[in-house]
Amino acid sequence: MNRQITLAARPSGLPTESDFRLVESDIPSPGPGEVLVRTLYLSIDPYMRGRMNDAKSYAAPVQIGQVMVGGTVSRVEKSNDPGFQPGDLVAANSGWQDYALAKPRELRKLDPMQAPITTALGVLGHIGLTAYFGLIDVCDPKPGETVVVSGAAGAVGSAAGQIAKILGCRVVGIAGSDAKIRYLLNELKFDAAFNYKTTADYRAALAEHCPKGVDVYFDNVGGPVTDAVLFNLNVHARVSICGQISQYNAAKPETGPRLLGLLILCRAKVQGFLVSDYAPRFGEGLRQLSAWFREGRLSYRETIAEGLENAPRAFIGMLEGANLGKQLVKIAM
Amino acid sequence: MNRQITLAARPSGLPTESDFRLVESDIPSPGPGEVLVRTLYLSIDPYMRGRMNDAKSYAAPVQIGQVMVGGTVSRVEKSNDPGFQPGDLVAANSGWQDYALAKPRELRKLDPMQAPITTALGVLGHIGLTAYFGLIDVCDPKPGETVVVSGAAGAVGSAAGQIAKILGCRVVGIAGSDAKIRYLLNELKFDAAFNYKTTADYRAALAEHCPKGVDVYFDNVGGPVTDAVLFNLNVHARVSICGQISQYNAAKPETGPRLLGLLILCRAKVQGFLVSDYAPRFGEGLRQLSAWFREGRLSYRETIAEGLENAPRAFIGMLEGANLGKQLVKIAM
Repeated sequence: MNRQITLAARPSGLPTESDFRLVESDIPSPGPGEVLVRTLYLSIDPYMRGRMNDAKSYAAPVQIGQVMVGGTVSRVEKSNDPGFQPGDLVAANSGWQDYALAKPRELRKLDPMQAPITTALGVLGHIGLTAYFGLIDVCDPKPGETVVVSGAAGAVGSAAGQIAKILGCRVVGIAGSDAKIRYLLNELKFDAAFNYKTTADYRAALAEHCPKGVDVYFDNVGGPVTDAVLFNLNVHARVSICGQISQYNAAKPETGPRLLGLLILCRAKVQGFLVSDYAPRFGEGLRQLSAWFREGRLSYRETIAEGLENAPRAFIGMLEGANLGKQLVKIAM
Repeated sequence: MNRQITLAARPSGLPTESDFRLVESDIPSPGPGEVLVRTLYLSIDPYMRGRMNDAKSYAAPVQIGQVMVGGTVSRVEKSNDPGFQPGDLVAANSGWQDYALAKPRELRKLDPMQAPITTALGVLGHIGLTAYFGLIDVCDPKPGETVVVSGAAGAVGSAAGQIAKILGCRVVGIAGSDAKIRYLLNELKFDAAFNYKTTADYRAALAEHCPKGVDVYFDNVGGPVTDAVLFNLNVHARVSICGQISQYNAAKPETGPRLLGLLILCRAKVQGFLVSDYAPRFGEGLRQLSAWFREGRLSYRETIAEGLENAPRAFIGMLEGANLGKQLVKIAM
């Protein structure tokens, strides 16, 4: 049987496990040219919260009763395409289920000798590409500049901060636990980091850790943390809006101070981006990320839940900041 | 005697006339290489509100007892520089007073046969340059795109909207009186315009007047008007933050909805700018603005108060939106 997790109800605020439903269906049979893949690892990402809302966005919402979407690392079980053989390991977009059909162009073959296969859902996949283009293309950081990253111990944030270090920047991370701060400082060698959950005055903390101001801000979080960074921007600063996870559960926009006037004073740019817009340059990005990875300059952490049935809990935990690095669910061996 | 208007007190909220003081001093004598100029017209601009605050900004605040700063059109009275003769008309930065000393490099000679001299404080001066660079350099509008301008009947806004029309855009203006709306539609030939003071639902009005969405937003105002525009942005929209006049009297930032997440959905750029950063390109800008002006494609309106003593009232009125086009004070003939 094919176990699937579908959207049972549209959440109001933080999702609960009852917003999901585990159902079973027959394992599908591949048609002409199709490939049947089995999910080994499911990627859990903040963007999925947006897909649970019935709102116009850059991608269609998941409908009630539909299988939740998501990237996967999968194994080919059956193939009606000469390019894929049973046993091949692939990056796919199977969603929250054991089995799925795929077209060959939706699959990317993985070589487990080159890198652990889960990196295809992390630093050597969309996560790494998001950090790469969101930092380099949107913000163009220069050696010696100060780069602040929010959500810095998450999958994208930890990659963005390391890339900024590779580029010669002073990197300051903001995260939500002391363990995360130790990880940023001791393992990723960030220049400074602070725990926003135990810091009273974010503006003062930023002023302390960014004595020359903030030139680049890579924002995964939004909210009061981002307000504080805006007050510390340097002239001609660049801000990349990658995510706003602090706001994703809000049924309507939270309120905060109106700070657009600060952008005039520092002539700063704030730009939202989606990694999918960079698809024509994914090859360039993956080559660079892979080179840094082989050189040992791009490390990563994973938080791995076990079992498809635990995917909702892992997802809810990620929205609350429980994960260090990339949140995955291991579905099968 | 030299009448001067000085800053008497730092305003809290909207300035009052008691925040200014009219004082008299001797007319100064030009030293070696200096020029004595007499103010004919004083420019009244929103940025002056910021200079009244004791806050770190891109320019030093006016100190209590100091003469208020401001651009002027002036006449040379005495000159110790061979390049200037009594009677020459110049653009200067004399501030709110009858007479001032200037260095030759601070003066720009005006030819009243080329254009009315007050245009040096308007479409053929910093106002026009602000509209030109803030629209073209920050937003790069393309023919057929929809450009929204807030504060559209003000000096900068009316110039920005006309430039967008020249570039072949659909231009939608937002302003605060029916007379201003008639001006935008009937004289400046904007494609659409609405009065935010008599419109209940800004988002609906924008959706109606921008059926293809908003590609470029030139913002002079901020606040709820800007919130509504952000909800109507197209993919890859560009927003130029020129001013935030609705917020200038706030002692601390007003609150509003947190909307940075919208920038991700539409991959939009929001950028603040100051015209002074474009000083190396002022020649280019003035040549283009002058060419459009001679061709009759760049018109303007002025609201002129009479007498230096009425400058504070004119300034307060401008902050409340009483002016149509450029607010000036006529000081002398």
